[in-house]
Amino acid sequence: MAGNSFGQLFRITTFGESHGVAIGVIIDGCPAQLNIDLDFIQSELDKRKPGQSKITTQRKESDTVQILSGVFEGKSTGTPIALLIPNEDQRSKDYGHNVDVYRPSHADYVYDAKYGIRDHRGGGRSSARETAARVAAGAIAKLFLKQQGIEIFAHVTSVGTIEAPNLESNDLSALLQIREENMVRCADPATAHEMIEFIDSVRKDGDTVGGKIGCIIKGCPAGLGEPVFDKLHADLGKAMLSINAVHGFEYGSGFAGSELRGSQHNDIPQPKAADSKVFKTTTNYAGGILGGISNGMDITFKVAFKPVATIMHNQQTINAAGEASEIKGKGRHDPCVVPRAVVIVEAMAALVLADQFLRNKASVI
Amino acid sequence: MAGNSFGQLFRITTFGESHGVAIGVIIDGCPAQLNIDLDFIQSELDKRKPGQSKITTQRKESDTVQILSGVFEGKSTGTPIALLIPNEDQRSKDYGHNVDVYRPSHADYVYDAKYGIRDHRGGGRSSARETAARVAAGAIAKLFLKQQGIEIFAHVTSVGTIEAPNLESNDLSALLQIREENMVRCADPATAHEMIEFIDSVRKDGDTVGGKIGCIIKGCPAGLGEPVFDKLHADLGKAMLSINAVHGFEYGSGFAGSELRGSQHNDIPQPKAADSKVFKTTTNYAGGILGGISNGMDITFKVAFKPVATIMHNQQTINAAGEASEIKGKGRHDPCVVPRAVVIVEAMAALVLADQFLRNKASVI
Amino acid sequence: MAGNSFGQLFRITTFGESHGVAIGVIIDGCPAQLNIDLDFIQSELDKRKPGQSKITTQRKESDTVQILSGVFEGKSTGTPIALLIPNEDQRSKDYGHNVDVYRPSHADYVYDAKYGIRDHRGGGRSSARETAARVAAGAIAKLFLKQQGIEIFAHVTSVGTIEAPNLESNDLSALLQIREENMVRCADPATAHEMIEFIDSVRKDGDTVGGKIGCIIKGCPAGLGEPVFDKLHADLGKAMLSINAVHGFEYGSGFAGSELRGSQHNDIPQPKAADSKVFKTTTNYAGGILGGISNGMDITFKVAFKPVATIMHNQQTINAAGEASEIKGKGRHDPCVVPRAVVIVEAMAALVLADQFLRNKASVI
Amino acid sequence: MAGNSFGQLFRITTFGESHGVAIGVIIDGCPAQLNIDLDFIQSELDKRKPGQSKITTQRKESDTVQILSGVFEGKSTGTPIALLIPNEDQRSKDYGHNVDVYRPSHADYVYDAKYGIRDHRGGGRSSARETAARVAAGAIAKLFLKQQGIEIFAHVTSVGTIEAPNLESNDLSALLQIREENMVRCADPATAHEMIEFIDSVRKDGDTVGGKIGCIIKGCPAGLGEPVFDKLHADLGKAMLSINAVHGFEYGSGFAGSELRGSQHNDIPQPKAADSKVFKTTTNYAGGILGGISNGMDITFKVAFKPVATIMHNQQTINAAGEASEIKGKGRHDPCVVPRAVVIVEAMAALVLADQFLRNKASVI
Repeated sequence: MAGNSFGQLFRITTFGESHGVAIGVIIDGCPAQLNIDLDFIQSELDKRKPGQSKITTQRKESDTVQILSGVFEGKSTGTPIALLIPNEDQRSKDYGHNVDVYRPSHADYVYDAKYGIRDHRGGGRSSARETAARVAAGAIAKLFLKQQGIEIFAHVTSVGTIEAPNLESNDLSALLQIREENMVRCADPATAHEMIEFIDSVRKDGDTVGGKIGCIIKGCPAGLGEPVFDKLHADLGKAMLSINAVHGFEYGSGFAGSELRGSQHNDIPQPKAADSKVFKTTTNYAGGILGGISNGMDITFKVAFKPVATIMHNQQTINAAGEASEIKGKGRHDPCVVPRAVVIVEAMAALVLADQFLRNKASVI
Repeated sequence: MAGNSFGQLFRITTFGESHGVAIGVIIDGCPAQLNIDLDFIQSELDKRKPGQSKITTQRKESDTVQILSGVFEGKSTGTPIALLIPNEDQRSKDYGHNVDVYRPSHADYVYDAKYGIRDHRGGGRSSARETAARVAAGAIAKLFLKQQGIEIFAHVTSVGTIEAPNLESNDLSALLQIREENMVRCADPATAHEMIEFIDSVRKDGDTVGGKIGCIIKGCPAGLGEPVFDKLHADLGKAMLSINAVHGFEYGSGFAGSELRGSQHNDIPQPKAADSKVFKTTTNYAGGILGGISNGMDITFKVAFKPVATIMHNQQTINAAGEASEIKGKGRHDPCVVPRAVVIVEAMAALVLADQFLRNKASVI
Repeated sequence: MAGNSFGQLFRITTFGESHGVAIGVIIDGCPAQLNIDLDFIQSELDKRKPGQSKITTQRKESDTVQILSGVFEGKSTGTPIALLIPNEDQRSKDYGHNVDVYRPSHADYVYDAKYGIRDHRGGGRSSARETAARVAAGAIAKLFLKQQGIEIFAHVTSVGTIEAPNLESNDLSALLQIREENMVRCADPATAHEMIEFIDSVRKDGDTVGGKIGCIIKGCPAGLGEPVFDKLHADLGKAMLSINAVHGFEYGSGFAGSELRGSQHNDIPQPKAADSKVFKTTTNYAGGILGGISNGMDITFKVAFKPVATIMHNQQTINAAGEASEIKGKGRHDPCVVPRAVVIVEAMAALVLADQFLRNKASVI
Repeated sequence: MAGNSFGQLFRITTFGESHGVAIGVIIDGCPAQLNIDLDFIQSELDKRKPGQSKITTQRKESDTVQILSGVFEGKSTGTPIALLIPNEDQRSKDYGHNVDVYRPSHADYVYDAKYGIRDHRGGGRSSARETAARVAAGAIAKLFLKQQGIEIFAHVTSVGTIEAPNLESNDLSALLQIREENMVRCADPATAHEMIEFIDSVRKDGDTVGGKIGCIIKGCPAGLGEPVFDKLHADLGKAMLSINAVHGFEYGSGFAGSELRGSQHNDIPQPKAADSKVFKTTTNYAGGILGGISNGMDITFKVAFKPVATIMHNQQTINAAGEASEIKGKGRHDPCVVPRAVVIVEAMAALVLADQFLRNKASVI
């Protein structure tokens, strides 16, 4: 059973290789009567597309999305929505060097081991180019969630060891504006400046660096998440870990929470005002999720990305015969993946939330 | 769509509440002709059962497992294997106090919010008692994997801020023996001693503490994992995050890897000996997984558990009407969940590996 | 991927062999807050149980069902409902004769071919005993549907070449009462009498005979069914074809409809009364389903059952080595399966409708 | 949960509307290293395409298929194969008449009832145009099955009440050649001639007529099919019933088998020759399937199609407000659907077989 679908009720299936004809996605299960704002979908893709700034890859792709089905007179019809993004700038010749040589810490070897055949051009299916399809589908999930009053915001919280301070603001629109004013997509301008300088220096070294992205979700009602395996944070975790280069996921108190005592970590529920239906706690170590089900507080999580494997240095490696070989990065690559991954994190979170929102409809008679 | 099943081809569905008649599991997809060693399954359950030592809950459950179907003359037949674990010591009266009051950082509120009804006895379905069913199913997955030469070993790597040193040994059987000689299940005896002292003092305070579990998998062939969503580490992450109290998951270099440069983080492939089919790298920041597919190196990951929410202190909270209330832990609870969770982590890892092993059979003609 | 689950949102997984410890079922996805009427579940099982009359097998099973989980104070909680039916009368020695010999038109050979191992006692998993679990689960689906105003009624429409006339009545309760007054479960008393005489004579011959069951569903709202593959009639067809001994399924005009012209077959929509929301057509060749979606008219379908394979005659066959052998039916068997299958047909229809009802909740924002 | 995917391991998801930009399909789970013969895929589509002869619709579509992903240097890579078929001849203006009026026995009303919105152009998603995507995917399944020695052959067995005699030949290639020599696709030339005359006269009447298609599968090994719900014939039945206009499915002895006695219906196994592994029975009432699992004999089934609903007569109907209205068929339609449906039946059968073939790989260790 292959693994190119995600979600149960709001379900996507992506296709396409880095240097093939096109990439794309089918969304099966988008509810009918949703306004499909093509400009919004395109604007989300623009945040992920290559060539945005000096700290991203210089590959040129407009990533122009087309709707092939499922939308009639601007609205979803309940039938599958197919989105297509043609590949434009396919410099496959850049990849002649890895036909037979395995790039260190890339998926070349394992694709050969698994399938006995490999589209070597730009990493083929293992390329992060596939995530453009996710961003397009995630944009539609965001449109659905917005109607339900659910907002998702992610930003870069660290690059290497440069760490942004915790966000003070609760105004996601304002934070989004700040974030989009700098090319690294950190909502703290001072830290952003530092991060950009650092990434630029790493790039000039022909090297790469990892980083982290934090995400906050506001307006999620209590009740989303399906015990015992499809807990909301388990689905979020799987979604994030399925993004290229991700090595870790934590929500709420995360790894640091494992060092605390129960008396420190418990979030104390606050009495409700007479007219309120909202559950609130004094602290939010739970990250908005208890027992795998949202409790109505903000949902918070963090995602760790390893450094991009392609570096402009000579590296020892082996060829398909297992013999010693050497390789040096060619092609056009990102020195740090997190600035372009912010919108991917948001997209995957939106897909999880939309799916769990629909699933929850069947919980009660 | 409810979420009580896990896995695609080696698929389990669990049922049962903490203080109901019984808990259990159906395994659908266990291949035929596997020797089903009931003693082994029981011995795995014994590592998870309550009342093992002074640092675990004193609830008395023998957790005796019965096979109801799917096994004939000691072998699996390819039909569903149903396993039943009757509940014995159901002191439901201990839970009269939380019929109407929401315990802080427990799932009481969210179950009410989601379903409008809640089996309040011992947490009902949200209780970690459900994980006994996973351990029983995971034991059968382990028997299957053992036939394929795949071994799984987990142990407690930290309790609070007490951290064990990295393992030096490669001999999982020897490590298992060391681990089982101490009640906290840490494979480093000196650290284990320190952890036990600490948990005991926390228990005497009526408090609880979190911790971490590390896991290593040896003998996994290259090729397991299904791009792009069902990456091996994404499935492992979801499996771990579905365990009660887990707040974080990382594999290979994990969160720390996000601070490194590509030139530090890349694992360099080593030339193969003429007669070798094995892929090896000098380092293993990848944690045995590239592009979501196992590469034949050891698979390594770490799981963070929050402190148990039930503490023997008075805590402020609210009742179902949203009014201020107070609660104090009753029932019998663990001061620290990680010693009993070690075998749960192994079980869930085994379920993921067995599933991906079967899925990989369909990769090539 | 094994096939012991049915349904997507109202999902069942059955387990158990004919002569094992017990059979049972987990329902995952039954909405919370449903009144679970155990007496009703048992009364449904009583209609399927063996030993009811002279025209059914004389195996003695009380088929007493136990609820193991998912129900609290008489109501569903949204967690998995596990139902257990212990096997009581397991005369396995009756089946010594088919350890090594393949019974003609039974599944003995194919289980060996597929799994290389076979629980030969009473057909093991291939026995229709498994359908008791479906009836128990279907009873809960019926309770759910009743709340939505949906009623399901099936009866025997033919035995051998004896065919009942079309039903005139629209009162399913009255028809049910008539049906239950005769042991063959045909709602036409005169035909029922004839059928019973015939089955009894066939039984005395040591032979068996096939038959057909017709089903009608009233009160189903328009909109159930998921294009393009999970059409309502496609799911009903699969459900029916998954019942032991079924060889054919047709809905609405069925096979006979293939002989008609469009001008004869089209159902003409009738103008609605000013205050009506109901869609009605003059005829109902569509069987209540257009384009795979219910249109609000009665849903009608028919199911064909082959004769039971076990006969009390000497038959030529082969053994596991492929050599000529001879076999004569032992054990206790039905001369005609349809009287006991009526409630199985209803149960499977109820499971499909409950599932599609929940799925339809996600169709629109 | 929407229903646009079919299959578990060899899984397809289709998209597209009759008069949209394009239709297409993603195949997820096609094993790697399969030779993808684009000419063969196109030749299959040519058998389904409109405008083939005087007895099919005159809509002009070349149905030219493009491969967007998953194929590298002529071979499948194990990644999703996306196939695109642009729509060319979209005379949407032909459908202005049914914007607000419900065509009798079409899906117009139920789409409105389910989704509250409808792409009225040519039936939108409910159009049989969607089946072109199935034929393209089925062609790849056929290529896979051919490698395993499995062949599928279908032909028209009846039109109205004109019935072809049973096939005498076992040579599927020869039968295919005969079938393709006549425009109705019946493998008996004399009956074919009669059918064509009849369809042509029906067409001249502005009317339509139903028919039946029979299918035979040779070379299928014993062991395919997953008890108890995903029986091979249950999956075949669902596949066939998911095709537009199908009202009935039977396999082996089918409905007629329900009239027989066990002593007539049982298929007697024949002793094997010393060197043979093949299971054979004297008769084949079982249709090659016992207990839901293939037994190695020919698999046989039959499918009934209702007459096409669009006729060139004035018909009474209602509009969206429920008021009386009148409609007359426009657009370009088939007088009888079966000639073009033969290859759709084969495609769906191939998809089921390929899926069950892969699923069976996990049956035994």
